Amino acid sequence: MTQYKYDVTMSCGGCSGAVTKALTNLEGVEKFDVSLESQKVTVESATLSESDILAAIQKTGKTAKVAEQ
Amino acid sequence: MTQYKYDVTMSCGGCSGAVTKALTNLEGVEKFDVSLESQKVTVESATLSESDILAAIQKTGKTAKVAEQ
Repeated sequence: MTQYKYDVTMSCGGCSGAVTKALTNLEGVEKFDVSLESQKVTVESATLSESDILAAIQKTGKTAKVAEQ
Repeated sequence: MTQYKYDVTMSCGGCSGAVTKALTNLEGVEKFDVSLESQKVTVESATLSESDILAAIQKTGKTAKVAEQ
């Protein structure tokens, strides 16, 4: 299991809800956390790559990038 | 050219911006309008079907349906 972190621009509950919905529907995601307050998304997966998950988040139309550790 | 109308739940500029980005990137869209105020999205296309466009909007994670005329 690998944990990936992303910076995602979310301005309201509708924004974070959209990202939550996308990750809920993404096969291979074991666990995730979407924080509107910190603008961070954390995802745990054994099968998806860092860029697979980034692409899924970006499909919501949000600006997202891999977080610097 | 056909015009399609959708009701889309958008709570802030980040929400409407996400829908705008999705429609900007959707091939076959000739013209569109995203209204945060009225919660309506209008799309003109000669090639896409009503359900193609609805699917693209829903991929942003927003709740969307075809508007009753």
